[in-house]
This record gives sequence, C-alpha cells and structure tokens, in this order.
Amino acid sequence: MSIFEGFLSTSETLAAFSDHNFVAAMLRFEAALAGAQAAEGLIPEPAARSIVGSCKVELFDVAKIVRDSGRAGSVAIPLVKSLKEAVGLFNAEAVPFVHFGSTSQDVIDSAMALVTREAVALVEADLAKAAQALLAHATQHAATPILARTLMQPASVTSFGLKCAGWAAPLVRSRARLADTARRALKVQLGGAVGTLAQMKGQGAAVRRRMAQELGLGDPGQTWHTQRDEWVALGCELGLMAGSLGKIARDIALMGQYEVGELAEPSEPGRGGSSAMPHKRNPVASMVALAAAGRAPQRVAALLAAMPQEHERALGPWQAELAEWPQLLMSAHGSVRALATALPGLQIDAARMLANIERLRAELPAEAADEWFDPALAAHAATIVHAQVRDLQDQLESTSR
Amino acid sequence: MSIFEGFLSTSETLAAFSDHNFVAAMLRFEAALAGAQAAEGLIPEPAARSIVGSCKVELFDVAKIVRDSGRAGSVAIPLVKSLKEAVGLFNAEAVPFVHFGSTSQDVIDSAMALVTREAVALVEADLAKAAQALLAHATQHAATPILARTLMQPASVTSFGLKCAGWAAPLVRSRARLADTARRALKVQLGGAVGTLAQMKGQGAAVRRRMAQELGLGDPGQTWHTQRDEWVALGCELGLMAGSLGKIARDIALMGQYEVGELAEPSEPGRGGSSAMPHKRNPVASMVALAAAGRAPQRVAALLAAMPQEHERALGPWQAELAEWPQLLMSAHGSVRALATALPGLQIDAARMLANIERLRAELPAEAADEWFDPALAAHAATIVHAQVRDLQDQLESTSR
Amino acid sequence: MSIFEGFLSTSETLAAFSDHNFVAAMLRFEAALAGAQAAEGLIPEPAARSIVGSCKVELFDVAKIVRDSGRAGSVAIPLVKSLKEAVGLFNAEAVPFVHFGSTSQDVIDSAMALVTREAVALVEADLAKAAQALLAHATQHAATPILARTLMQPASVTSFGLKCAGWAAPLVRSRARLADTARRALKVQLGGAVGTLAQMKGQGAAVRRRMAQELGLGDPGQTWHTQRDEWVALGCELGLMAGSLGKIARDIALMGQYEVGELAEPSEPGRGGSSAMPHKRNPVASMVALAAAGRAPQRVAALLAAMPQEHERALGPWQAELAEWPQLLMSAHGSVRALATALPGLQIDAARMLANIERLRAELPAEAADEWFDPALAAHAATIVHAQVRDLQDQLESTSR
Amino acid sequence: MSIFEGFLSTSETLAAFSDHNFVAAMLRFEAALAGAQAAEGLIPEPAARSIVGSCKVELFDVAKIVRDSGRAGSVAIPLVKSLKEAVGLFNAEAVPFVHFGSTSQDVIDSAMALVTREAVALVEADLAKAAQALLAHATQHAATPILARTLMQPASVTSFGLKCAGWAAPLVRSRARLADTARRALKVQLGGAVGTLAQMKGQGAAVRRRMAQELGLGDPGQTWHTQRDEWVALGCELGLMAGSLGKIARDIALMGQYEVGELAEPSEPGRGGSSAMPHKRNPVASMVALAAAGRAPQRVAALLAAMPQEHERALGPWQAELAEWPQLLMSAHGSVRALATALPGLQIDAARMLANIERLRAELPAEAADEWFDPALAAHAATIVHAQVRDLQDQLESTSR
Repeated sequence: MSIFEGFLSTSETLAAFSDHNFVAAMLRFEAALAGAQAAEGLIPEPAARSIVGSCKVELFDVAKIVRDSGRAGSVAIPLVKSLKEAVGLFNAEAVPFVHFGSTSQDVIDSAMALVTREAVALVEADLAKAAQALLAHATQHAATPILARTLMQPASVTSFGLKCAGWAAPLVRSRARLADTARRALKVQLGGAVGTLAQMKGQGAAVRRRMAQELGLGDPGQTWHTQRDEWVALGCELGLMAGSLGKIARDIALMGQYEVGELAEPSEPGRGGSSAMPHKRNPVASMVALAAAGRAPQRVAALLAAMPQEHERALGPWQAELAEWPQLLMSAHGSVRALATALPGLQIDAARMLANIERLRAELPAEAADEWFDPALAAHAATIVHAQVRDLQDQLESTSR
Repeated sequence: MSIFEGFLSTSETLAAFSDHNFVAAMLRFEAALAGAQAAEGLIPEPAARSIVGSCKVELFDVAKIVRDSGRAGSVAIPLVKSLKEAVGLFNAEAVPFVHFGSTSQDVIDSAMALVTREAVALVEADLAKAAQALLAHATQHAATPILARTLMQPASVTSFGLKCAGWAAPLVRSRARLADTARRALKVQLGGAVGTLAQMKGQGAAVRRRMAQELGLGDPGQTWHTQRDEWVALGCELGLMAGSLGKIARDIALMGQYEVGELAEPSEPGRGGSSAMPHKRNPVASMVALAAAGRAPQRVAALLAAMPQEHERALGPWQAELAEWPQLLMSAHGSVRALATALPGLQIDAARMLANIERLRAELPAEAADEWFDPALAAHAATIVHAQVRDLQDQLESTSR
Repeated sequence: MSIFEGFLSTSETLAAFSDHNFVAAMLRFEAALAGAQAAEGLIPEPAARSIVGSCKVELFDVAKIVRDSGRAGSVAIPLVKSLKEAVGLFNAEAVPFVHFGSTSQDVIDSAMALVTREAVALVEADLAKAAQALLAHATQHAATPILARTLMQPASVTSFGLKCAGWAAPLVRSRARLADTARRALKVQLGGAVGTLAQMKGQGAAVRRRMAQELGLGDPGQTWHTQRDEWVALGCELGLMAGSLGKIARDIALMGQYEVGELAEPSEPGRGGSSAMPHKRNPVASMVALAAAGRAPQRVAALLAAMPQEHERALGPWQAELAEWPQLLMSAHGSVRALATALPGLQIDAARMLANIERLRAELPAEAADEWFDPALAAHAATIVHAQVRDLQDQLESTSR
Repeated sequence: MSIFEGFLSTSETLAAFSDHNFVAAMLRFEAALAGAQAAEGLIPEPAARSIVGSCKVELFDVAKIVRDSGRAGSVAIPLVKSLKEAVGLFNAEAVPFVHFGSTSQDVIDSAMALVTREAVALVEADLAKAAQALLAHATQHAATPILARTLMQPASVTSFGLKCAGWAAPLVRSRARLADTARRALKVQLGGAVGTLAQMKGQGAAVRRRMAQELGLGDPGQTWHTQRDEWVALGCELGLMAGSLGKIARDIALMGQYEVGELAEPSEPGRGGSSAMPHKRNPVASMVALAAAGRAPQRVAALLAAMPQEHERALGPWQAELAEWPQLLMSAHGSVRALATALPGLQIDAARMLANIERLRAELPAEAADEWFDPALAAHAATIVHAQVRDLQDQLESTSR
C-alpha cells in the first residue's frame, strides 16, 4: 500500500525506488559488466555491443519480472532470463555472455547502490536547505529572548537564535558525515558466484574497477556479499539524521501549541487541513518528521539485525535487508524534505516568546524571576550564537565543495 | 518498491493492502455511516441512499486521491472531497451529510480494520495448514531417531516426530490466540472530531453499533483514537507467530545443509534456482520465513513505540503506525504461506538421520555413545509425541469451530 | 551500572531479579525436583531429604556462582556444582541424585518464571491502583470542560473525565490480559537434556506435574526449551502496558507545561528538584513512564528477535533473551509504579482548563467558537463517561476476583 | 540482575560502568570544573582547592547516592549535595562554589563520556587482536580449499583464507571508524542550566576548554544537551561492530557443527561444558557474540528513538538513553573479547574441509563437479587473499598509530 508510505515520503524517492527504476539500474549493471568484460578481453566485443544495446528498460516487461521474482526467490533470475531472450533476438551468439561470471547478488546490490545514490543526493540537497534556513533564523533571532525549558518545565531564558543554531548543528554534521559514509557505502558489488570471481580468470578485479568507473560507484577492491558494515553504516547515518530532524519537529510542535504560540509552520492552501474542522491548521511537516523519527530506529535495527549473514550469501537476512532499505531512504527523505520546505517560512512570534516569559515572571518571587527569567539573559545566548553560526556556515560550505 | 517487499509477501495480502482495496474499504465505511445515521434519523433517508449509491470504488480516481493525500496530510480529506463531488452530481442536498459527524481517523482506522480482517483470515488458514502438515509428520515419525542438538552441538537422541510436534505447538497456540486477539482488535472506529461524537446528539453509540453490525467489525463501545492497545496487541501476536515460524525455518535450513542432509524443501520447477549455478536448489520457503522473523520484531517495536499518542489524535505516531502496519501483515502472511506450502511436501530422510547418529557413535567412547546416543532413546520421545499430537489436534479443531 | 537502571525501576523488582533471589529460585527448583522424584520413586527419599535440606540460599556463595558462570557459559553449572558439594558434606550418597535427569535450561527457565511471578504480582497491583485513581478522576470530572487537541492543536471541547476514562481503559484491559498471559507463561520448565526426559524413564511428566504444584507454576505438559511463544507473549503484554502508560505520561507532561497549566504531578519534598534551579518542580513520574515507553519496544523486539532458537537449545538467542528479560520487567514496573503513585494526587486545575478554552474562543469568529469550542460541548463527553467508568470498574473487579 | 548480563560482558566493562566508577567520574568532573573556574577567575582559588580535595570517591557513600537518585530524579542531585557536605566540613566558604554554574546533565553526560572512554579503549584493543588473529589464519590458509555456501547450500569452492580475510575486513574498518567516531563523541558536556553558561559571565567557553584538556575529552565548542547525534553515532558504530562479529560467530557455529566439522573453538577446562552431558563442548565464544548481535540492534534503536529530546533537556528520552548506553558497551565488549580470545586458537581442520568437498563431488555429475567444486578453484581465492591481507594489515597499523 503506497498510501501511508507515500504520504510520509516524496515522489522523487518513490520514483527512485520504483520497480521501473530498479530494473533500469540492474540493466545498467549488466551493460557495464559486458562493456568491462569486453574491454578486458573476457567476452567478444560484438557480444558486449549486443548486450549493451539490449539493456534498455523500455524493452522489458517490468511487471512480469517482478511477478516472476517471487517464485524464483530472486529478482535477478527473471531479469537475466529476459535479458538473454532480448539479446537472443538479435545475436544468438551473445547470449552465453549475458551476466557472465556474475551472480544475482552482484546485480541486485549494485543496482541498489545506484538507486540509493539518487536518494542520497536528494537528502543532501534538502539537508543543506534546512540547515541554511535555520542558520538564517539563528542570525536574525540571536538575541530574541525565549523561555528555555528542561524536563518540559520553564528553566531559564535563552534566545530563539540559540535554539535554531542548536537545531542546525546536527544537520550540518549529518551532511558532512553522510557524504563520507555514502562514499564508502555506494560501491559496485562484483564477486561472482561465491566472491572469488573465479570465472573471470584473474581479470575480475580489473572488470570491477572499470565497472565502478562506468557506473560512478566506488570500487570496494573485494566482494561485500556478506560484509555489510559500510552499507549499513549508511543506514545508521540516515537514522541519526531522522533523529536530529525529529528533535526539531518535536520542539516546533511544542512551541506551536495554541497555549504556547511561539511558532507556526507556514500555511498554504490545501495543506494540513482537517476533514471535520475547517478552523484547524495542522503542523504537517513536523508530523512527517516525527513519524520518520519514530520509524527510522526500527529500520536501522532491522538492518543491523540482518548483519550476521551466513557464509558467502545469507538465507533470510540479505533478503530482509533489501526489503527494509528503500523504506528507510524514503522515510528519511520525507522527513528532511518536509522540514526543508517548512523551515524557511516558519512563522516566528517574538512578542509571544517575550510574553510567555513575562507571564511567568509575574508569578514568581522577584528574586527568582530576576535570577532565572530576566529577558536580558538572552544576551548570554546571543554572544554564543554568532560564533556558532559562522562555524556551521563554514562547515556547510566546505561539505558542499 | 514492491520488488523486495512483494517477494517476501503474497499476492493476496498485497491486494488486500492495495490502494484500490483501501479506498474501497473507506467507501464501505462512508456508506455504512450514512446508512446507520439514516436509520437513527440523523440524516435524511434520500441523502443516505445517494451517499451509499456513490460509495463504489469504480467511480473514483484512486491514484489522484492517493496523490492528494500527501499535501492534505491525510488520505481521508481527498476521499471525502471526491465523495462529496460524486454525491453532488446526483443529489446536491445530500452533500452536507457525507461523512457527517465523523473524522479522518474514523474512516482510516475502520478501513484498516476491514482490510486487516482479510489478511488475518489468510493467515489463519495458512497457520492451520502448516500445523496440520507438522502434526502428520509428527505422527508418522514419532519414533524416528534423530540427533538432538543443543548450542549447535549433538547432545543426545530424540525423534523427528517430537521435533515436528514441538514446531506445531506454537502454531496451534498462535492460531487460537490470533482468533482471540483479532476479535478484540478488529473494531469499528467512530468518535467524531475528538471522540465525543458530539455532532450525533446522543445517537453516536447507536450509529456505531449499527455500523459494526453492517461492516462485520466489533463495536468497541468507545473511541480508540489514541488507545491503541488492542490494535497493537494484534501486531504483537503476528510478531510472535513470525518468531515461531522463524524457529521452524531455522531448523529446516540447518537440517537441510548438505553435510546434515536430513531434510529438504520440496522442489518444484522454477523455484529456488540460482542465476549462476544450475546445480543449486535453495530453501526459499525457509528464506521467506527467516526474513520475516528478522523483520517482524522491528515492526512490532515500531507499533509499540507509536503508542504514546498525544491527546485526542497524535502528531506523528499515528501516521507512523499506519505506515508500518500493512508491512507487518504482508510479511507475516508471506512467512506462514511459505511454510504452509513447503511443509506438506517436506523431504524427510530418516536413513540420513540415523546415519548421522551412527557416525557420531563411532567416534565416541562406548559408554557415552550408549548413554547419550543410542537410537533407542527415540522411544522416550515417541511416548511423548502421540499424546501431544492428540492434544494439539484437539486444540486446532476447537479453534476452527 | 545500577544507577540509571534502578532510577527507572523499583527496589522491589531490583530485589526480585537480584542475583541472590535468582539463585534462591534455582535452589527452589532443585529442591522441588528432588522432592518430586522421590515421590515418584525415581530417587531415594533420604537423598531427596538431603538435597532439599541443602537448598538454602544462605549456604551458598552467590557472588562466586555468578563469577564462575561466565567461564562455564551457564549459571546452572556452578550452581549444580556448589549444590553437589553442599549435599556431599552431609550425605555423599545423595550427590548423584542432585539435578538428576535435568539440564541447565530447566533450572534457569523455571527460576526465571519464579522471580518473574513476583514482578508480575507487583505490576498487577500497581496497575489496579493507577486505574482506580483514573476512574475516580473520571467520575469527578465527567463534565469538566477541557480543550480536546488533535495533531497538537485545539480541535474542540471534551471533558477531563473522558480523558481519564480513556487513559484508564487500556490499563484495565492490560490487567485482564496480563493475568491471562502470565498464567500461560509462568510454567515450570522440565525437559531434561534434550526435551525427552529420557533419564526419568516415563515418570518425567508426573515429576513435572508435582513440581508445578509445589512451585505454584503451571504445568506446560511438554518442554518449551525452544518454543518461547507463551513466554515472549508475556513480554509483549508488558510492552503494550508500557505504551499505554506512556500515552498517559505524554498527555500529563503536555498538560503540565507552564503555558498550559492544566495538571501537575503531586509535589513532595526531595522529589523532582533541580541541581541548578531551586524554583523547578519536574514531572518525574511522567519522566519514568516516558523513558519506559521508549525502552520497552526495543526490549520486546529483542525478545521476538530471539525466538528462532536452534534445535533443542539455542546458541545465542536464549542467552540474549535471559539478559533482556529482567530489564523489561524492571522498567515496566518502574513505569506503572510511578503512575500509580502520582495519579491519585494529580493536581487538576479545572479553572485553567476552562480559561484555555475561553482564551481560544475569544480569538475565533463567533460561529467557529460556538460550533467547536462551546464549553457546553463537554456535556456530550459527560454522557459517555459514566457508562464507561461503570463498565471499567466492573472489569477491574472481575479481574481481581 | 548481573548474572545474565555479566555472563555476556566482561569484568572490565562491568567495572567501568559500576556505580563506584561512575560516581568517581562525576567527582572528576566537579574537580575539573572548580579548577578551571578558579583558573579563569570565576571562583576563589582556595574554594577550588577545597572542592578538588574533596572529590575523592573514597569519601562518599556511593550506595546512598544511588539510592537517593531515584527520589530526586537525577543522580547528580544527591552527588552535589554530598559533595557540598564534604566540602563544608573543611571550608564552609567553598560550598557555594561547588558545581557552580553547572547542571545535572553537565556532570552526568561528562562522567558517562569518561567511563565510556575506558570501555572504548578495551573494545579497540580486542578488535585489533581479533583482526590480527584472522589475518594470520588468512595468510596461512590462503589456498586451503573449502566449500563456499550460499543460501545455506554448497555453491562452489573458495579458500578458508578468503573467508578469514572477509571476516577481518569489517573489524579493521570498525576499528578505524570507531577511533574517529569516539573522538567526536567523547566530549565534555558543559552548558549550565539551559545551555547558555549564563552564570559564567562570558568565561564559559574558556572553562569548557580547560576542562576538556584536564579530563582528556574533546571540547564540543557548544552544549550538546539535546543534540545527541555524535554520541549516538558512537552507539551505531558499536552496533555495526556487533553485527560484523555476529557474522563471524554465525559462520564459526555453522562450520563447527558436528556434521560439518571444519572448525572448533579452542577448548579449555571448565569452559563451555554442560551440566548434563559430560561429552559436550559448546562454542561459548560464538554464543556470546551471537547474543550480542541479537541485542545490539535493539539497543541502537533505543538510542536513536531517544534522539528527539525536548527543548533544552528532555523528559524521558535522555533518561532512557542513559540506561541503555552502558548495556550496549558491555555487550559489545563482551562480544569482541570473546572472539579476540577464541580466534587465535581456532581449531582448523583443513582435511575435513577438503573431505566435505570431495563427498559432494562424488554425488554430482562429473561436469558440475568439475565446473563448480574442483578444489583447485581455491586458487582463485588465493590470488585475492594476499593482496587483501596486506591491505588490511596496513590499515590496522595506520589506525594504531
């Protein structure tokens, strides 16, 4: 059911992980394999040309390939079968060279890396947008007094700018770590039947290097059939990001409560309405981010739990990982997109922030009011904010380069 | 991406949780609501007839409703909007009575209960098949000696029949508990905007009772908007089932190793082949069940984590629960269907079971061999099996009635 | 480290799951085993008397047994060794009858059932207290108007009594389900080395029946060495309870925010203070319940993930389950105890509830204010509350009997 | 209960996270705070000397501090109270300068970083040992033929050395990533009541810098009260490590099955015995690692789930994180210690590896036997192994420097 998944995701990641795009990515793998093998002299050039020429997703019945995968126990099997049929129509001699020396996991893992790269690029772009919006608010509200709250109770005074800088910092770090982790995770998979590339007679490493180049993925230098640490590390990174975004959303939802009234998500026709109550305006960006923050930990746990993969290919854990993976990416991008969209136009009510402080002061003994709730205490926050923003801005720019 | 999800699920549950079927279920809710409200005199009979007449999924653009749900923050909003338009084409006066006194969560939760009921029925049927296959093997092999293994090492001798009875017992219990839990979970949701059914002027409870009757769901007697215990209890039950099935699959995979050779999943053309190695026959039913056993715990955790739902409707947790729910059902049914299909034709090699014992005996001092590995020890197991099978058979039949 | 665990738990459950109490429970198992075997004529009466006489925890060096368990890979091994030494001091002939025909898992699982029973009794008592406090508030505030909030925004008016009844309902159901689930989970484990009770020569079932009687546990009628569904079902039930308690705590924390001011946890000297800010009063009961609600799902997931246990005893999953189990119980009791203590004295500010409504009304167009935020709407809630309270009171009493 | 936790952990990490060691770490924080504040002229030198002089764990009643923490809702409160009493005995004028300008979370988070550093050092040392043992086996068995197995079925031939290199690679990577992640996670926490360090009048950043220096922790440059990404990233890293170790343990357990017989854990008196069966030798190192691999994902999920922390200090999530954290470290170190101890003496039966291949060959058609199961295929693996080992050895050394 795409209703409740799509809802919390984005059309771009739904497209990236669609059956059509995944089959296209598998075909890119097969084309790159044939090309590299021909360049290394492992298969005839004309065979490679025929194979490459047939690796066009438009030629295939994607729905049938998906349907047949259940019975086969692997989507690579019907894909390779269809590809052989397609190649055979034009060049029967090329058929034995389709998928030569490779295995299901090679094509599936590599295709997953290709489509994941698309999703990670989307995540990175939106992370930057969200962080930049927060840094702008931080600068503008560096000295705007607001209640600081600990254990859900007023504790003292800080500035709204410092809250924004605090929200931004983990996003800036996430972006830097994500670039690093993705570089290590997005690698071609090529090990052949059991990881030795035996059929490629010593040229396997060279073929893998060429394929990595061609596909724009990293060259792992070895198979990672059942060594999933760098791959799952990318999943962890997305889980961390979802947590940091969830923290922002939690705070926005709290500050947006009617009785608090310090913030509101930007309003827009048709967004966040209610089927029963026309007066309502729901914080739907926070909703998406909070839902993602609740789901991502379990998804990460599923990936970690699938790491003890037996021998040279696992029975169960690998398949579980494949099924969990797209959902983590879709949900993570849903979260960061929601906040990247909402944060720039966040409605900030500085007067209300001050009024909440003043109302509390009025209820406290003067001494406590002055020691802990003097709006002038925001000045302490202000001195911190500017240096932090500068630092975060630098980090953000250096990651982008 | 349906490839890696569908693979581990079944076409029936994919259909049950399809967008089309879910929208159809929402329309059944709206029709039942209008019908019940007319019967209680809350809305005019002709309006109800117009609404009921329009509640046909064929009339609606399901893809558009799904697409608009993202922006709206709820699938109920575009559904109700489309329904009002449809009703308005024939009877403009009926439009204000569409979805009268109800709220998004009412229609969504109720529709989810309706489609879940379909999935639970599938699960129950396959649970019975799997259990029955195991009880048959248990009877036939009540005295067939086999190594008992603890901590992955040979420990003594038991019978294969006792292993089968041990596998069957939790399935029989699951089926009984599932019937019970489903009865308590599959209830209509009707609370109106905030759970008081205020717009129905005291007739709310009667409307809910009629709707429950009409839809074949339970009447909760109150709203369960943010009280999800009985609903999540059903999720837990499916998690327990996935664990029990995973235990069977784990044992089958271990006993099916080439070096052990005591069991094999039934073979079938096109099933469990390899894209690289024509000689291979993979235990794909165990694969599906092991993948489900690895994923279900995280799905249950996500449901439990979503239980602290704020006030009268949650921001984030409810939406997370909705997204996680179908995947648990799809994966759970995938698991039980895989084993229900494979278990009846399980290839059981009693000679190999005995040979494994004898080979070990030959390596041990005679005394240890006789004390712990005498095949005659299977007789102790045999005396237990028959009583257990009888008992489990009785329970299975009493649950079916 | 007990600091951060104990903090979120209770001294009673810490004691129940202490090393001392667990070793005592193992000794109760060994005594019951010897007694039952003597009664069935499997071992000599004098041997049984010697064994029973030595099964006193005061005689044992608990710390040494715990220390040696790491090396042995099981706590039962040093326990049985120490018991044999103790028995041998008085009656050398009885030594071979210590732990006769049993295995590590028998004594460990049974002891865990014994100490869990203590913890479950604590949970049940506090559940009843918490539910009763809520039902009292529900009755008293059946018609007290309060803002109903959906997606963290004001949606309409309900009554505080209806919120309390909504909070109480899952606790009442939890108590009923818990009694049921505990009855099925708390069973003696007795299977011997591999589940066949081979050494007891056909008397095994009778021995198990006697032991169950003696220990006050259920008789499973079979071994459950690697069939953990009924046991883990108890864990699920505690997870559901933690979720329902977390929902209450979430709402209390939200309503207790300074800006909302509708509720406060009872204050008490030394409770919920701040090391820096003397003016603060923190909602520590909600804190404990929210922490438990965040942790329990993961603990339940760990139990479910450990269900696929290999063959007749697992390598890893069983040991993981044993380590996770006490923490779930300790955290679950911490949660229910915290709320059972705080709920009776909850400080309820009905005037503030009304004031929050009135302030909102003043900001809305008159029509919307009257349609959705008329305090008189609480009357709809009031009509529902009384019936619900009566019903819940009945269920609570019937479970207690 | 320490029995089942300690069992799967190590005495060193139990000591690192003991109440005693944690209180000692909190006192180190308080001493460093006073020292740094005196150096910055914020508090009088004599007061600082008195405070530093009293910060000796031997002077405190650790058990009482722990006991009082439950009531207070934070362990820092009784600690600060006790410290003030101790300081007051010698220098009443110093009392107001105890814990000056700081808050509970500052001392608790910093102390947790200090004790975690001890545990991480233990993990790193054992990771290196485990990796080195595997690299030695990889070199020695670079060309030793063994069945490669996919989906739990024989697939072709690889070398045992390649399996070892495959096991080692993620450990080498873990060690490098762990050093990096720990450097970023192990930072002093100092934000004062709400993160602005308001009471330190602009010297807060300088105090924090000095404290970081003194305590050997990083200087975060800002507070991380509710920004937990770098901290939880360390948890993720340990989860990844537990997964990679679990994969090794899973393979060892499978290859150590009696019927496979290719590997055995080193035997040692009193290790891995059975309470019932004297002939048994259980793979207890694999057991510990498999248990950790089953538990760590849930622990990581709990940490991620606790990331959305409200405002300037969370109600529930922070406390949950604190309780979960030590268990992850203890279990992770248990796992790597178990394998670091067992791997060097792993009993490797190359003859049996060959025999398993030969037996399979005998059952297959000659063509398939020669194409897929010729022991000479191990040569393909051998050519790969040496380069990998060299590369991994280099990485291991460069991380150590």
